[in-house]
Parts: sequence; C-alpha cells; structure tokens
Amino acid sequence: MIAVLKPGTDKEQIDNLIEWFHSYGLRTNLSEGEFSTVIGLIGDVSRVDADLLESLEIVESVMRISEPFKKANRKFHPDATVVEVGDVRIGDGSFPIIAGPCSVESREQIVSVARSVKAAGASMLRGGAFKPRTSPYDFQGMKAEGLELLLEAKKETGLPIVTELMNAEHIPLFADVDVIQIGARNFQNFELLKEIGELRKPILLKRGISGTLKELLMSAEYIMAGGNDQVILCERGIRSYDSDYTRNVLDLSAVPVLRRLTHLPIIIDPSHATGHSYLVEPMSLAAAACGADGLIVEVHNDPQRAKCDGAQSLTPEQFAAMADKLRRVREAVGGPVV
Amino acid sequence: MIAVLKPGTDKEQIDNLIEWFHSYGLRTNLSEGEFSTVIGLIGDVSRVDADLLESLEIVESVMRISEPFKKANRKFHPDATVVEVGDVRIGDGSFPIIAGPCSVESREQIVSVARSVKAAGASMLRGGAFKPRTSPYDFQGMKAEGLELLLEAKKETGLPIVTELMNAEHIPLFADVDVIQIGARNFQNFELLKEIGELRKPILLKRGISGTLKELLMSAEYIMAGGNDQVILCERGIRSYDSDYTRNVLDLSAVPVLRRLTHLPIIIDPSHATGHSYLVEPMSLAAAACGADGLIVEVHNDPQRAKCDGAQSLTPEQFAAMADKLRRVREAVGGPVV
Amino acid sequence: MIAVLKPGTDKEQIDNLIEWFHSYGLRTNLSEGEFSTVIGLIGDVSRVDADLLESLEIVESVMRISEPFKKANRKFHPDATVVEVGDVRIGDGSFPIIAGPCSVESREQIVSVARSVKAAGASMLRGGAFKPRTSPYDFQGMKAEGLELLLEAKKETGLPIVTELMNAEHIPLFADVDVIQIGARNFQNFELLKEIGELRKPILLKRGISGTLKELLMSAEYIMAGGNDQVILCERGIRSYDSDYTRNVLDLSAVPVLRRLTHLPIIIDPSHATGHSYLVEPMSLAAAACGADGLIVEVHNDPQRAKCDGAQSLTPEQFAAMADKLRRVREAVGGPVV
Amino acid sequence: MIAVLKPGTDKEQIDNLIEWFHSYGLRTNLSEGEFSTVIGLIGDVSRVDADLLESLEIVESVMRISEPFKKANRKFHPDATVVEVGDVRIGDGSFPIIAGPCSVESREQIVSVARSVKAAGASMLRGGAFKPRTSPYDFQGMKAEGLELLLEAKKETGLPIVTELMNAEHIPLFADVDVIQIGARNFQNFELLKEIGELRKPILLKRGISGTLKELLMSAEYIMAGGNDQVILCERGIRSYDSDYTRNVLDLSAVPVLRRLTHLPIIIDPSHATGHSYLVEPMSLAAAACGADGLIVEVHNDPQRAKCDGAQSLTPEQFAAMADKLRRVREAVGGPVV
Repeated sequence: MIAVLKPGTDKEQIDNLIEWFHSYGLRTNLSEGEFSTVIGLIGDVSRVDADLLESLEIVESVMRISEPFKKANRKFHPDATVVEVGDVRIGDGSFPIIAGPCSVESREQIVSVARSVKAAGASMLRGGAFKPRTSPYDFQGMKAEGLELLLEAKKETGLPIVTELMNAEHIPLFADVDVIQIGARNFQNFELLKEIGELRKPILLKRGISGTLKELLMSAEYIMAGGNDQVILCERGIRSYDSDYTRNVLDLSAVPVLRRLTHLPIIIDPSHATGHSYLVEPMSLAAAACGADGLIVEVHNDPQRAKCDGAQSLTPEQFAAMADKLRRVREAVGGPVV
Repeated sequence: MIAVLKPGTDKEQIDNLIEWFHSYGLRTNLSEGEFSTVIGLIGDVSRVDADLLESLEIVESVMRISEPFKKANRKFHPDATVVEVGDVRIGDGSFPIIAGPCSVESREQIVSVARSVKAAGASMLRGGAFKPRTSPYDFQGMKAEGLELLLEAKKETGLPIVTELMNAEHIPLFADVDVIQIGARNFQNFELLKEIGELRKPILLKRGISGTLKELLMSAEYIMAGGNDQVILCERGIRSYDSDYTRNVLDLSAVPVLRRLTHLPIIIDPSHATGHSYLVEPMSLAAAACGADGLIVEVHNDPQRAKCDGAQSLTPEQFAAMADKLRRVREAVGGPVV
Repeated sequence: MIAVLKPGTDKEQIDNLIEWFHSYGLRTNLSEGEFSTVIGLIGDVSRVDADLLESLEIVESVMRISEPFKKANRKFHPDATVVEVGDVRIGDGSFPIIAGPCSVESREQIVSVARSVKAAGASMLRGGAFKPRTSPYDFQGMKAEGLELLLEAKKETGLPIVTELMNAEHIPLFADVDVIQIGARNFQNFELLKEIGELRKPILLKRGISGTLKELLMSAEYIMAGGNDQVILCERGIRSYDSDYTRNVLDLSAVPVLRRLTHLPIIIDPSHATGHSYLVEPMSLAAAACGADGLIVEVHNDPQRAKCDGAQSLTPEQFAAMADKLRRVREAVGGPVV
Repeated sequence: MIAVLKPGTDKEQIDNLIEWFHSYGLRTNLSEGEFSTVIGLIGDVSRVDADLLESLEIVESVMRISEPFKKANRKFHPDATVVEVGDVRIGDGSFPIIAGPCSVESREQIVSVARSVKAAGASMLRGGAFKPRTSPYDFQGMKAEGLELLLEAKKETGLPIVTELMNAEHIPLFADVDVIQIGARNFQNFELLKEIGELRKPILLKRGISGTLKELLMSAEYIMAGGNDQVILCERGIRSYDSDYTRNVLDLSAVPVLRRLTHLPIIIDPSHATGHSYLVEPMSLAAAACGADGLIVEVHNDPQRAKCDGAQSLTPEQFAAMADKLRRVREAVGGPVV
C-alpha cells in the first residue's frame, strides 16, 4: 500500500503518520518528490483501512498494490484449476455445455429435455427447483420435488445436474446435486457463501447483476476461505443503461481478464445475459472464440409454454444446431485462446 | 397488458393468438391501425409472461399497464403508512434521524456514541453487529455480543435500535431489536425477505447497489406479502460509472418518485451513498429539503480508529452541528415537500 | 402510439383528449378495460410529443409502436447495405479489417505500418490526423500534415484510408480520404452529422461512450436524411461501472441486435473498447464468431513509443498472427452468422 | 506518478526502466518492499503515457498523483471564481436562477415567459434557438430568428440571456448573447471548446450525459486554456440503469465534490435531469440546500403546447411558488453550505 501526502504537509505530521503505521507493525519507505511526498508501506497491510487513510487531512490518495484476493489469485497459484464433475472436466481446455430448462416443471419435461440436450452433446443438465423471482406472486419453482425430478433425469441420462441454492437450510436436500449454483442476486450473500465454503462440492458462482470482477473474485474467496476450492465462475450479463433490446450486456472481455487474474475456470451464460433466444447462438459462438471454459444455456422442449424465461430458451433443435457450430469454432481457435 | 403485432400479420395468426389469450381466461380488445394491430388484454394478466409474449414471431412489443406491486402501491392505499417505533414515528411528516457507528466495537464505544447522538437530537441508534464485508478477511462484527451491547446502549439512553440481519437463522437473536435492517446486498435475497415477512416488526429495507425503484418496491412486496407491512424504504446510493470521488451516486429524486408510487416512508443514508464524511452534511440537508422522511447516518466517537467505514463517519460534534441545520431546513420547507 | 389512461378518468376528460388528438389529424381507437382505458392513435404520430402526453394528469403511460428511425430501418429496407470502398466491400459477408496506428506520427511510421498490415491481410489503413484528446495539453495530432502522410501511405500500398473528422470546416482537407470516421465523442454532434450527410462518401460512425443502440441509429439517420446512405456502424465499447481492468465494456450483442434493426453494416473496434493489447485478439475472434462485418484495430510498429494509445496497440507480428486465427474462425462460422 | 513493479522483476529490467524515465528528464525514487518494488517519478510527468507504462511486462500498476486539470484546479487557485453577467453574480454566495422555455417559439411566447419569470425573481432568461434533437425529424429551433427574439425579450425585461451554441460558425450570431451554453452532447466536442476558449464571454458548460467530474473539469480546462476563465459548470443528470421514472439521475453530490476540486461556480439543471415537472421543485430545493450556486430551470407559459420538453416545464405560477420556497431554504442554510 502506498500513501501520497498533500503538498505542504509538515515534518511533524509526517512523523506522526509514520508512527501510526509502525503501531500496526509495518515498515515504511519515504520518498519526497518535488510536488508530493509518498510513503510506501511494507508488511501485512490487511489491517489498514485504505478508505480511512485516504480521508485523513494530510493524505492525497492511497493505492493498494496487491489484489485483495489470495486463494483465487493466479499470482499465487499459476496452474489452472480443473473442476471435475463425474467424467466432465471444466477448465482443462475442453468446452463442456450445461443445458436445460429455466425451471423443472414435470417429470416428463425434464427427462425429455435431458435426453435431447444429451443427444446434442451437452455434458450436464441444468434446471431450477428453487427459483429467485422478482415478484412474490410469480412461480417460485417445484422446490424439493423439483430436485427429485432432476435426480430422476440424471438417472435416465447419466448427466450430472446443476441447480440453484438460495437458502443454507436447504443444503441437506442438495446432497446428490453435482454442482450447486449461486445466482446473481446472492453473489454477495456472504452468509450463504460461508456455508457452501464448508461443503466439498463444485460451486457455480454467478457474477452479480452489477458486480465488478474484483467483487466476483472476493466472493469466490469467501467460498475458498472455507476450504472449498472447486469454484466455477460465470459471467451472465451486467446491468447497463441500455435495455431497449437486451436484458443485460454480456461482458465477454471478462473471460480473458479473469484468465489473467485467477486460476479458476470461467463459463458464460448467454441466455440470462441477453434474454432473447435469437441472441443465444451468436453470443455462444463468441464465448467459444474468446476462450471461455464452457457454457450454461437454457433449452426448453416447448418455450412458448415454459413457466419462466421462455423468451430466452432454445428448442432442442436449435441447441443441436448451435452445438455443431460451437465444435467448429473451438477447432478453429485450437482450444483455449489465452 | 397490451400486445402490438407486427405489420403483415395475417388474420389466422391473430385469431390463434386471441384464442391463446382466451385460454388464460382473458378478454381481448382488437384495434387495427394503419401500420399495426394492437390487442388489449382485459382481466388478470399476472399469469402471462410478457417477455415470452414479446418473443413470439408475430409480436412487435408488449406493454404492461399496471405496476406489478400491489400492497406497496399508493394507487390502492392512498394514505401514507406511518411506522411506529416506540415514540418515534416515521412517515408522519416529522424527520427522525437514526445515528450511530458502522459497527459496535465495545460497550464503552456504543454507549458513548448513543449518548452523544441522543443529546444532538437523534431518535434511534444504529450499529452493526453482523457485518457484510466484501472480503472474508475483514472484521465481520461482534455478532451476538454486539447485539447485547446495543441493547445495553438502549437501556442507558432509551433510544430504539436498528441493526442489520443477514441470516434468517439469527432471527431469534433479534427479538429485542426495534428495527431490522436488510442491507443493499440482500435486497433480493428473497428467502430472507420471506422470513422477515412473517415477523411483526419494522423493517428498514435498503435499495440494492444497482436496484431499480421497481425492484425495491417488489422486494418490499415480498415482505408485505407475508403480512408485515411495517416497511421503511432506504435510498443509499447507486452504482454509477464515476467513482473517482464518491462511492456511489445518491439518487435523491427517488424520494419524490417513491412518494408517488408508494405509501411507505422513505429515508436516506448519505454515509454509505457518498463514502466521505465531508459529503454527509450537504447531502443530508438536500434530503431534508426534498421531502425525505428521515435519515440514517454514521457517527463514531473516534472515526480514525473505527473498525470499519471511518472515512464516512461524522464525529458527534459534526453530527450535532448538522442536526441544527437540518431543523432549519425542515422549517423552511414546512414539513413534507411533496 | 398508444396512450393508457388512469383509472377513474371520466368521459368528458377522455372526449377532450380524443378531440386534441383529432386536431393533429389522427384517428383514434378506444378500448375500455376493467382497470384501464386505452387510446390507440392511427396516422402520422410524429408530431405528438410522447413525453408531454405522458405527463398529462389523466395519462398513465404511453408506448411508441414504431421505431423513430426510418432510412436506417431494416423493416423498410430488408436488403443489407454493402458499402464499397475501392475494391473493399463492407457488409457483403466478407470480413475486412481496418488497421493502423492511433495517430500518424511520421512518414516513415505510417508507411511502415501500412506495409505491415497490408502484408498480414488488412484491407484498409486507419490513422488519426486530428485527435480528440481529453486533455488540452495532450498531443492533438499532426492535422493537415498527417492527412498528407496518410495519402502517401495509400499511394505506397494501395490501401484506402480511414481517418477521423472533428470539425466541419476541415471537410475540404478530407477530399481524398476514403472513409470519414466520426468518433464516439461526436456521435451526437448533430451539426457535424448534418454536414457529412451532404457528402457522398462512406462514413464510419462510432457509437457514443454511453450511446444506446437507438441513439446510434438516430445519428445514422441524421447522416442518411441528408442523402448519404453509405454509413458503417461501429461498436467500440460502452461505459460501465467496472473499469478496474478494461477501459469500457465491449457490447458484442450489439452485432446481432443491430443486424435485426438495420440494414447497415456493423464493425467492431476491440482496441478502444478494452484499452489493452492482450484483450484485442480474444475480442476480435469473438466479433468474427458472432457475425460482425469487420474490425478496426490499432497496430503500431513500436507501441512503447507511440504518441497515444500505445497500451492498446498490437505489433505488426501480433496482428499477423491474429489475422490467421480470424480467417479460421470465419471459415468455421461460414460467413455471416445471423 | 508512481509505478509499481511486478514481483520477481530482476535488477536489469528495473535499471532499463529507470534509464527510460531518465530519458524523459525525470528523477526517480526506488522503494523495494517485501512483495513489490515501487518507482516514484519526480519532475514533469505530463509526457509519460500512464496507460502505456501500465502495459509494460514488468509493471503491475501506475498511479497519477496530481490531477490533470490545472487552471480549473482549486489547489492552484484557492479563491472562488465569480462570473459576472450584467448585475448578476454567479459564485458569490447568492443563488441566481436562470429560467425560460426549452425553445423560443414566438415573440409573444418568449416575452411573456420572460416577464413572468422576472416577476417571480429569476435573474436570467434561458431559451433555445438552436436545438440539439435526437431525431433529424424533430423541431430544430428557430435558429437566428430565435436569437433575435431572445434579444427582444432582453430589451423588454432587462434579463441577460443564456442560449446554446452548437456550431462554431454561428459564433458571430451570438455576439449579444450574455452567456453561451454548451450542451451535454457537445461537452467533449473539443473543437467547439477551443473556439469558445478564444471568446471573452461567460460559458455555461453542461456535464455530458455520462461524463465524469474529471472529464467535466478537463473540458472546462479546454476553454480556460484559450484564455476564457468565465466558466460556469452545470450538473444536469447522468445516465443510469434505471430510467423507469426519471430521464436521468441528478447527481447532487457533484456540488460539494466540485466545490473542493475547483474554484468555478456550479449550478443545477433539475428539468433535464428528471424530465418531469413534478420533480423540479423538490430537486431544486435539494440543490439550494446542498450549496449549489444557482439553477437553470425550464418554464413555459403553456407546457401542453410546448414544441419540446413540455413534460418537464413548470408553469409561471409553479415557478413563482418554487422561488419562494427556495428563498426560505437558502436562508435556512445561510448561504453557501460548503
């Protein structure tokens, strides 16, 4: 951490500040420029409140030098993390696709979609049992029954299942779920993050609707601090000023940026990002081209009758056509781009 | 709800769509313009998925006519809700101030701040016992012990207390808390909202860091749907593209806008909105001038040694000086502005 | 246009409003629902101010049915516009790349870069002669001399040139320029747009730093209203709340969205969008995969000594390597995606 | 400027970098920490490209220490600038109000509004003659004729006039205009800023629709660099993700923030910020309470027939009522707040 002092700060004030730093067990390095004086802090600065320091009368500005995330930081763990889910490997240069409906609606529906997406090359099945809905009056999911139907679809097809957890009290119900998803609205529900940090099960962590990449990594850090390092990051569109034609803006540069910052795998959700099925294929191809580790895509057997998010769901036929193109793009870029 | 069809849609397609609406028990009104055809839906449209409807081949666009919030809607409840906390009334044209430190740090600290803010005219005491922190390595609050210290400060001063709940499992610990705060990061933690909807205790609901006003009202609706209608809304700054000089942008127009949309009281948090103590007074005066129902402000006896958010905390002296000016501004505008 | 009236509006008020519409030469269609009354307007509504209408006491909300852009609208011009620049065709399914330095700095520099990018497959040369800089103290470009050097580079290599115009008074100097660029900061400089609408020369119009897609199309409409329909749209990153790691957020879904809305070609500028050279290749590959009509990319012979934007410039070697991968991705997606 | 190097950078690389800095005539100060090495640059760093420096292989991050604006910087000019327009003084602790219609529409209209707002206490008259409109098909103002009518209204009432300039070629027409306004869409039209920097006439510079405060000050710097230091800054609402109920978000904390950063006066435009007349009074009162130097407000004699922006215009009666309340709030806060 570096503190830049205001011009005209006198020696006594500087000495007091340095003494204050020493009281935290830090060493300091003083550099006096023509226009300003700079104090570099050496040692464990995690106990210094940078905002507070910056608010001091004599301090002009403060710069953190090291990133606040440690376990998720590629600097300290140069090798890519590969998350294993059954036979599926996420982060090893392959490009697994998680596909399925927004919500589990019936046994017939989920098994039928599972079969279709498996035939088209999907590696895992997604489906919501507990649904976060903006309105308390909207369909909230089939809950425990939905989880059971997902497990039946898994038994029928062999596809591992991915589904969202909203409440730590439900964790026992998720014992046989393969990957637990934490949704955008809970990405800073720190109490929930701590609880799943205690599990030893892969977590799919979605970026918050206006989460920064640093915040996403800090939320991953919450999970990893508990000992669970099987975290898959997911970019799913961020809020912008323009929502005339898309629900959110898909931030694909997050893929190569996160690749540098962290060793964790990064997948893309083009369905929630855009909110429109006609945008899912072009955005999926773009994700494959820029080096994402996989996709999570909504597929429904009958989008016009879906209980939620029908507008953004592909039909199984559209999904199969897209999967073909994705394979060709992956071959063209020769595996991971970055 | 109104659906506008694409030009060139033929009669059979229109008839099919109308039949589909009728299958939901809706009546329809058809209007054929020179350039487009419009279908108005009459009846309970809450089961129609507007996004899905808009994605149909023949549909150009869809407009909701009625707001999705009901219990929070001023249209259906024209009289202002007044939330009562002991002798304090929020929403009746008075301007109560909730003040106190970011975190409870010790008995001495919280009691001392409580006495200072009471003397300066504060009506309630705030203080964090459970703290949401971006980093798992930051101070997370004194937890249950912090709640006890808050209650002691209440006993000493008579000030009702306001403190944040992050986990439904902690609700029993909050039995003697006067107002439960739901923080910005949990404003769409629907599971938590449902739980506090079962309580019969005032809730201070903060707007999410990029929450729309409609989403804020839908989250209030979650609480009210459970039967708890003692909800106080709180604007606390929203995320913008410019964070060079302030943490967030305080959206003061939310006050008169919400005043029209809802009967619930609206207070302002200038401390978290700006992140800098020198901005708290001017933003508080602005809030008073534009008709807010009150404030929640951070005050610390020794900001430079605060365990969190010292940079945005007022000293008791600064708070007392501000409280004086607030009174004058309130007199000038003659109570509620709108 | 559709106006939804507030519940409880009485017949006389409705009659007055309808009379007001008739005074604009509009026909009306009245639909009375259980909860609200809707008036559809038929005829030329362009003279009705929708905001004003919405502000009337008795009006709940107003919806435009037709898009405000006409000449740029694919609805009225279904065939894609192909802009021809010498032998280069933009919008025909090929994928031309415009490459070159941020600024022209010397004869040697611009000719050398031009040769390198031509050898690697670029179709046109970019280079700034007049530079928009945030600070008045920064290098503002070589101006008229820079234009002459660009023309020399064109003579040497045959590459058509693309360069930015900031001031209508400079138009005579641009007589031999092949494509005139309008930068993000001037995308709503309507006076300049009107002037270039009078030209008969291709225009590369960049989206404003926080421009909506609708505004971009309205700015294209300004140019086309003057009779110049050779407009190339360019997405170059939009402002977001997260600028820790990228200058802007590249909104790639703009490509398939604009494809639906307009017949004009759409290219991507990955250099200004991201601000970092290591992000240019992955974002370019993504642009190719999702169906963009081309790229505009910064390439500099010696980025570390560039007079501006060195941080985002590729070396000629990096550019050549990227061009190879782009060809493979284009083959994989089989030309235009959407 | 400070450069932080990556861990593991070897001595030779550091020496090369330091040599490079010396070649710019800079002195350096080296500080080696446990985890990183920091180089402080002493001297004139304006020629160093911070982005480029940050992109170097061995550099972790770079921090500017001094603000890039000089003439607008309060640090170098501690006394507040007072802009004088006839008898009106902006920035001296008084609170002048500029009022008038969006557009000049006729002699009768502008003279009538001018008389009304003067009677209610306005100090200056606003009115658009040249209008920036998103659509080329919308009313573009009365142009030169509109300027003449404004001058007639000035002759009738004595009110100085404020009107927008969009094109440097029109400057001769503005010879008798008292204050030239630069609108939000031209706030980074650097060519126009340079031209008005040559004038010796007050400039009202509006913040761009997504301009940062730093950019606003850099645009003021463009004007001041030409020798014209009579610049009035204007906050008029910024673009956000939530436009359900307001056009923009009024960023009132800009007032106290700019007060610290610059000596230039700061006024507020509540009409364009909100887009709704019912929000103008509460936001104006808030502006007065938080220390703004004045207002610019839209007033129209017959908003329902205004040629533009009728939805946000006050009637003369509403304006007069608001002006009374503003006086009381200004008395309450005792002049400038900060």
